[in-house]
Amino acid sequence: MKTATSGADAGEIRHYMRQVGERARRAAREMARAETAAKNGALEAICRSMEQSAGGLVEANARDLEAGARSGLDAALLDRLTLDAKRIAAMAEGLRQIAALADPAGEITGLSYRPSGIQVGRMRVPLGVIGIIYESRPNVTADAAGLCLKSGNAAILRGGSEALHSNRAIAACIHRGLAEAGLSPDAVQVVDTTDRAAVGELIRLKDYVDVIIPRGGKGLIERISQEATIPVIKHLHGVCHVYIDESADRDKAVRVAFNAKTQRYGTCNTMETLLVAREVSGRILPDLGQMFRDKGVELRGCDATRRILPWAGVATEEDWYAEYLAPILAIRIVSGIEEALEHIARYGSQHTDAIVTEDITRARRFLREVDSSSVMVNASTRFADGFEYGLGAEIGISTDKLHARGPVGLEGLTSQKFIVLGDGHIRS
Amino acid sequence: MKTATSGADAGEIRHYMRQVGERARRAAREMARAETAAKNGALEAICRSMEQSAGGLVEANARDLEAGARSGLDAALLDRLTLDAKRIAAMAEGLRQIAALADPAGEITGLSYRPSGIQVGRMRVPLGVIGIIYESRPNVTADAAGLCLKSGNAAILRGGSEALHSNRAIAACIHRGLAEAGLSPDAVQVVDTTDRAAVGELIRLKDYVDVIIPRGGKGLIERISQEATIPVIKHLHGVCHVYIDESADRDKAVRVAFNAKTQRYGTCNTMETLLVAREVSGRILPDLGQMFRDKGVELRGCDATRRILPWAGVATEEDWYAEYLAPILAIRIVSGIEEALEHIARYGSQHTDAIVTEDITRARRFLREVDSSSVMVNASTRFADGFEYGLGAEIGISTDKLHARGPVGLEGLTSQKFIVLGDGHIRS
Repeated sequence: MKTATSGADAGEIRHYMRQVGERARRAAREMARAETAAKNGALEAICRSMEQSAGGLVEANARDLEAGARSGLDAALLDRLTLDAKRIAAMAEGLRQIAALADPAGEITGLSYRPSGIQVGRMRVPLGVIGIIYESRPNVTADAAGLCLKSGNAAILRGGSEALHSNRAIAACIHRGLAEAGLSPDAVQVVDTTDRAAVGELIRLKDYVDVIIPRGGKGLIERISQEATIPVIKHLHGVCHVYIDESADRDKAVRVAFNAKTQRYGTCNTMETLLVAREVSGRILPDLGQMFRDKGVELRGCDATRRILPWAGVATEEDWYAEYLAPILAIRIVSGIEEALEHIARYGSQHTDAIVTEDITRARRFLREVDSSSVMVNASTRFADGFEYGLGAEIGISTDKLHARGPVGLEGLTSQKFIVLGDGHIRS
Repeated sequence: MKTATSGADAGEIRHYMRQVGERARRAAREMARAETAAKNGALEAICRSMEQSAGGLVEANARDLEAGARSGLDAALLDRLTLDAKRIAAMAEGLRQIAALADPAGEITGLSYRPSGIQVGRMRVPLGVIGIIYESRPNVTADAAGLCLKSGNAAILRGGSEALHSNRAIAACIHRGLAEAGLSPDAVQVVDTTDRAAVGELIRLKDYVDVIIPRGGKGLIERISQEATIPVIKHLHGVCHVYIDESADRDKAVRVAFNAKTQRYGTCNTMETLLVAREVSGRILPDLGQMFRDKGVELRGCDATRRILPWAGVATEEDWYAEYLAPILAIRIVSGIEEALEHIARYGSQHTDAIVTEDITRARRFLREVDSSSVMVNASTRFADGFEYGLGAEIGISTDKLHARGPVGLEGLTSQKFIVLGDGHIRS
């Protein structure tokens, strides 16, 4: 397959992607009936292959890093692109963790007799073919392949062009592992062209792909959701709130709010707006504000906040909508839970929101009424994560409401069909 | 609001639909926190109101029937459009059954402690605003309203223009019931215009509507899925199969296949293709074929079938894809389960497929490998139905793979968010 720079034409790319799709669809049927032992065996074999080929992976990665440096990728991107012995070991460890998880495929639940005499239940089944579109990190290739494989799906992986050689080398390990376990190498295909048209084709392969999961910046994800003719599990943005209620324990409030903002700035579950009940604002904000100041976090507050923290900047309407992904925090003082709920409903992104309170009635109300994929009481928003939730690993986080909300693990790559058992039963 | 015939312009329709959307969004927040007793109280009050207004409902319906007769609707459509005392009682009974179902909203499952000390679980929550687009039957207005209300959603209902007066009258009863229970009448809105542009607006009200459920012909549903910018829970078509395995019990095979085809011809879960294992075809097909013949079912068979049933017509490639919804049946003789699975994977519509067998290994294989929303062993495909499955009622049947598969009841109108409980826990 030619790459973008070699000028493959649109028809060629379309033909190539249809072939990829056809192969994936065939492999998906095989994967759907693969035994747990075969899938785990493949995961183990992939790990061994990656460990044995560590030198080759680093070499392939070096080619990407050189090209990246030449084309002017910044240090942060080059870092994300880098594969070294430690990261290769971490990829293998991730796959071993996936192998250790229970197999979701085929699980039967709720099988019970109906008055007609039939027995009705549900069986968890793979979605089929998952298309994953992601950016520079090559470890996503191994993670995504592992999750799709374990859940009995076939995967079509489209990584960033800057990681092509690394992804090819990882794909070779995956194919060796699949073959060793007697599974079709087509169960995991890495799109082997950097032509951007391949993405456009992939998200319209209606006959061959069941769901698209894009991982990357908001722009990429919005474009894909708009253009795709296949359902997309998407993660748009995280404008996460912590609301400090008037009955909050002061220490918990300070600890949770500080951690939610400063434990990492660039993640989607980082707090972007702090809401504080008026009654406790004078008691909590001076110290908490100072902690943020010492940490180098820029504060932007409402008028009431600025009366307590005169050195804070002014929060404009735009700040309430902002996902800073940076050491900046918007702060608003509210009259109480009612106004906090209003604020979150209006400005939030339905990602992750937390209340700090000792009042069980308000905690229950917050849990019920905040319409976000993760809602928390007395815990840092930074916990919104597949590993922390015990999903084993996550293929992404969904801010959608249908199908999966929040971190998406193995279960999110499956759905449930109905099964009916009878003994010659007919409907009258 | 003007109707189509009065020539409302596109801007006016857009403005009207946005207002409907805004009201629904506000009502959805209220419904999400409504107590079970309030929702059940509203359902009861709606029933009473419908029973008390039965005369008015019949009168409003008479206007639709007159207009329908004038515009040349055929007898079958006029019958579906008709509301009489019996059907009004059935609508009320349907709502009482919904009231008796467990409230899915707020249900917490799997709450368990993680090594970090936080407690993580899931809470079932309403989707928000459901847009339902349907055709002539006015009883859908009550059913859909009831299911959305009970699951804590707000509904925007867009019925057929031929049922406008009936739907308005039912909507008035619904609004009285909601008001009596102290809930917002905006929780159920009936789109009060017959202008087709309203549908086009509804399926693009991204900010206000969370999911669209179209009920009607395949053409309508395909058009809506293509044009909608909101997720659609759709039911395309049902090309359902019964496969009679070589180990089938002869009586069960005959009973199930006959029922699956003839119990009703026009439903999506009716068998359209019968597959028979070669080994038993000579023993089963002569009698079964004669039963179909006596019943007036036209048979179209493969060559092998026609050697046994020489009077059967010829099945062409198109017949294997056909959803007849009529007394026509395609029959194919296959070498065994392998070929049956191939046939279903290739020609089926992933709706409902059944095997008749006494062999547990092949039964298990069929259950696992057939990728349809309902998969059955020794039972008629006609059982694929929300009531038969114990869902209480269904808002539709999904042939999609994401979110809900098969009959969609209350649970399909909800999704699950994560909840996290801590005691000041932070991430390290």
